[in-house]
Amino acid sequence: MPGTDTAQIPGTRHTSRRGLLFGSAAAAVTAAAGFAAGSMPADAAEPTEALHGTDTVAFHGHRQPGITTPAPAFASFLALDLIQEPGASTAARRDVLARVLKILSDDAARLMSGRGVLADTQPEMATNPARLTITVGLGQSAVQILDPARVPGWLKDLPAFSIDKLEKAWGQSEVLVQLCSDDQITLHHGRRALEKDLRTLATTVWIQNGFRHSRGSMPEGTTMRNLFGQKDGTANPVEGMLEQAVFGGAGLESWAEGGTSLVLRRIEMDLETWDEVDRPARDFSLGRRQSDGAPLSGQHEFDSPDLRARDDSGFPVISADSHVSRSLAREAHEKILRRGYNYVDGSRAGLIFAAYQADVDRQFVPIQQRLDEADLLNEWTTPIGSAVYAILPGCREGSFLGRELFPD
Amino acid sequence: MPGTDTAQIPGTRHTSRRGLLFGSAAAAVTAAAGFAAGSMPADAAEPTEALHGTDTVAFHGHRQPGITTPAPAFASFLALDLIQEPGASTAARRDVLARVLKILSDDAARLMSGRGVLADTQPEMATNPARLTITVGLGQSAVQILDPARVPGWLKDLPAFSIDKLEKAWGQSEVLVQLCSDDQITLHHGRRALEKDLRTLATTVWIQNGFRHSRGSMPEGTTMRNLFGQKDGTANPVEGMLEQAVFGGAGLESWAEGGTSLVLRRIEMDLETWDEVDRPARDFSLGRRQSDGAPLSGQHEFDSPDLRARDDSGFPVISADSHVSRSLAREAHEKILRRGYNYVDGSRAGLIFAAYQADVDRQFVPIQQRLDEADLLNEWTTPIGSAVYAILPGCREGSFLGRELFPD
Ligand code: HEM
Ligand code: HEM
Repeated sequence: MPGTDTAQIPGTRHTSRRGLLFGSAAAAVTAAAGFAAGSMPADAAEPTEALHGTDTVAFHGHRQPGITTPAPAFASFLALDLIQEPGASTAARRDVLARVLKILSDDAARLMSGRGVLADTQPEMATNPARLTITVGLGQSAVQILDPARVPGWLKDLPAFSIDKLEKAWGQSEVLVQLCSDDQITLHHGRRALEKDLRTLATTVWIQNGFRHSRGSMPEGTTMRNLFGQKDGTANPVEGMLEQAVFGGAGLESWAEGGTSLVLRRIEMDLETWDEVDRPARDFSLGRRQSDGAPLSGQHEFDSPDLRARDDSGFPVISADSHVSRSLAREAHEKILRRGYNYVDGSRAGLIFAAYQADVDRQFVPIQQRLDEADLLNEWTTPIGSAVYAILPGCREGSFLGRELFPD
Repeated sequence: MPGTDTAQIPGTRHTSRRGLLFGSAAAAVTAAAGFAAGSMPADAAEPTEALHGTDTVAFHGHRQPGITTPAPAFASFLALDLIQEPGASTAARRDVLARVLKILSDDAARLMSGRGVLADTQPEMATNPARLTITVGLGQSAVQILDPARVPGWLKDLPAFSIDKLEKAWGQSEVLVQLCSDDQITLHHGRRALEKDLRTLATTVWIQNGFRHSRGSMPEGTTMRNLFGQKDGTANPVEGMLEQAVFGGAGLESWAEGGTSLVLRRIEMDLETWDEVDRPARDFSLGRRQSDGAPLSGQHEFDSPDLRARDDSGFPVISADSHVSRSLAREAHEKILRRGYNYVDGSRAGLIFAAYQADVDRQFVPIQQRLDEADLLNEWTTPIGSAVYAILPGCREGSFLGRELFPD
């Protein structure tokens, strides 16, 4: 990989993982100074401002960006299906998918560095990338097209859960593109540019847009609040655990070197009935305090929940049916990386739950099964969409995402 | 007004107007340091970060905030109708409206200062106000309830325009609340808190959510790009003109001292067909360059368009049918303050066009009429929603918005 500084590739061993998730973005982000300067009126610039619009994340590398890199303020998840002639041969379908992956790889490299795509009609909207990341995943049928031998066992519909009320509109697609940025105009432009460039090859199945706190409004690493008002994302794997959880190791194996999986669930949250719940009942249902995110057994947000702690009457401080108690990893390997976004869609609202893990069946499914059996939060939450993707390994310059899956 | 520093009230004579619109937000914004510190993990704070989440705008003052204060990154326009018993007396209706205005005034003061509303179920979501502003307007029927003698002549439906394809869903309401903030979580919480507190008094007619560039991604005062990729907002009134245009003076008179008007139009933009238009045709239709926003007759974004400039063949450099040529003020008093936001709504997208002016009939209508007769941009834009509101004067602490309109 000539000219590539691996220290700047998110998720490599050379990068502090805690730095990536909870610290300043500086480690993963390089300021692409200068290229957008022409679009900024010189007289409006103030020397004291630290502008984040020109912050970029590297596209090329061993892993894709947008996974262990810090989550920008906005995400747009774009689900695509390949356009196929009826009865098309496997070779023809493979060709369509190859073209999709080549276009996505080329467009992602351009957009993430603050440039428009080829023949972009409004490249000016690309010059403020604001940590734009573009991450590509494939559904089961798409990996099947490429190389049936490489379809991971977990790349299939999740088991049916009793809490699910899945709506067809938010189901599985063949291709998924996750776009994240700190600027919504950039995000909208990037998403449309991809859709346009793929127009003859793929159709849009759905788009899910989500938000977190704005960049720079709170200290980097502040846990976001979901629409119930809870700190959401506290107990994510950090340091040594993150790498294993997401990319495999120690009894887990990722399906492809540098690849991972994404479970994307659209979970509706009933804000109206939640509003009627008082503070003690809210905290009891979660097992943590809404105020500061601390476990009911502890003092500070990042204290570990103690499920054995008892109150004066001998009752568990953290209810066995609380969300934290049910979702807490029973075995070390169950750790998943949650990287969700809030959504509001007319009068409906909730969480775009996005979890990365090396093996869906061994990590995500047992947690979801426990939550399905009992979780006090279930009274106010309903999964309405669900999809599972294999996230491709990263690619180096001159290559494209998925290249290693094509038999050649 | 005891204890109020007028220099911090947006729009007062003591405040530099250019500073408010195009400069740093410092003049209008006071950092409410400290009150949110408890919700931020101390170990995540980095001394070098300049956080904007605690920036607040003053609610109390001679004028309402959210008009001449710099536009934050996000807006949520909430349209409400009063809940009325069938055949309710004017006194009863006035009572409902008084309660609505008192609640809105109290909630706005709290939320804008970073506090939850009374009995807020998730006040933690209010602690990051990020320049939150809440601005209240009334439709014709609502001012009628308060004081028929004070209904301004322009407070009525706009004349019908041939380009309009108005949809019932985005029509006139009795009350309008404009919320703006640099943080979407704050904005969502604030909007819901208001809806909840008004639940027994008013129903939601529609909500329109919009976005601009993120705070801190570009220098303060950078003109936003709309979804056509154009710099939008360049030729807004500044300095001496702003005050007059919005609040009256020199032949214009605002309907109430400190009050103004808001025309809110939802204008769909056909991004698909616009994509097919090449750069010269785009610039010709607008009369300005997409690249840098400069008028075709000039060099820099803030150069004045010269409608008499001719090219070598004697043709006007700025077409007489271009948007700029048609919308340019024919008389000094026609100036309006545009403060719009981009919207994306599934596969539809466009501009939430929001214009403030002292007199709708003398300022907005003649411009819109010229655009209706001819404007090359009309081929790709369609007004689908329209409403007109009287924006109330500001209120002082201890009082409430609209107080002076109640006969007492
Ligand atoms: C709308 C639905 C959900 C909401 C509102 C929600 C909310 C939360 C909150 C507030 C926490 C505590 C803070 C934190 O550690 O992040 C939490 C923890 C957690 N949640 Fe969820 N969650 C939802 C769905 C899910 C789902 C579907 C899964 C996986 C199947 C899941 C897995 C976890 C895990 C693993 C933890 C960390 C437990 C620990 O190690 O302490 N959650 N969730
Ligand atoms: C989706 C619809 C519209 C789009 C995309 C649009 C776009 C633009 C753009 C790009 C400019 C040039 C930059 C600037 O000065 O801001 C402009 C200027 C302007 N527009 Fe619009 N506009 C729209 C609708 C309207 C409407 C409905 C009105 C009023 C009825 C209006 C009034 C103006 C005015 C007064 C100017 C400044 C002219 C000058 O003094 O140079 N626009 N618009």
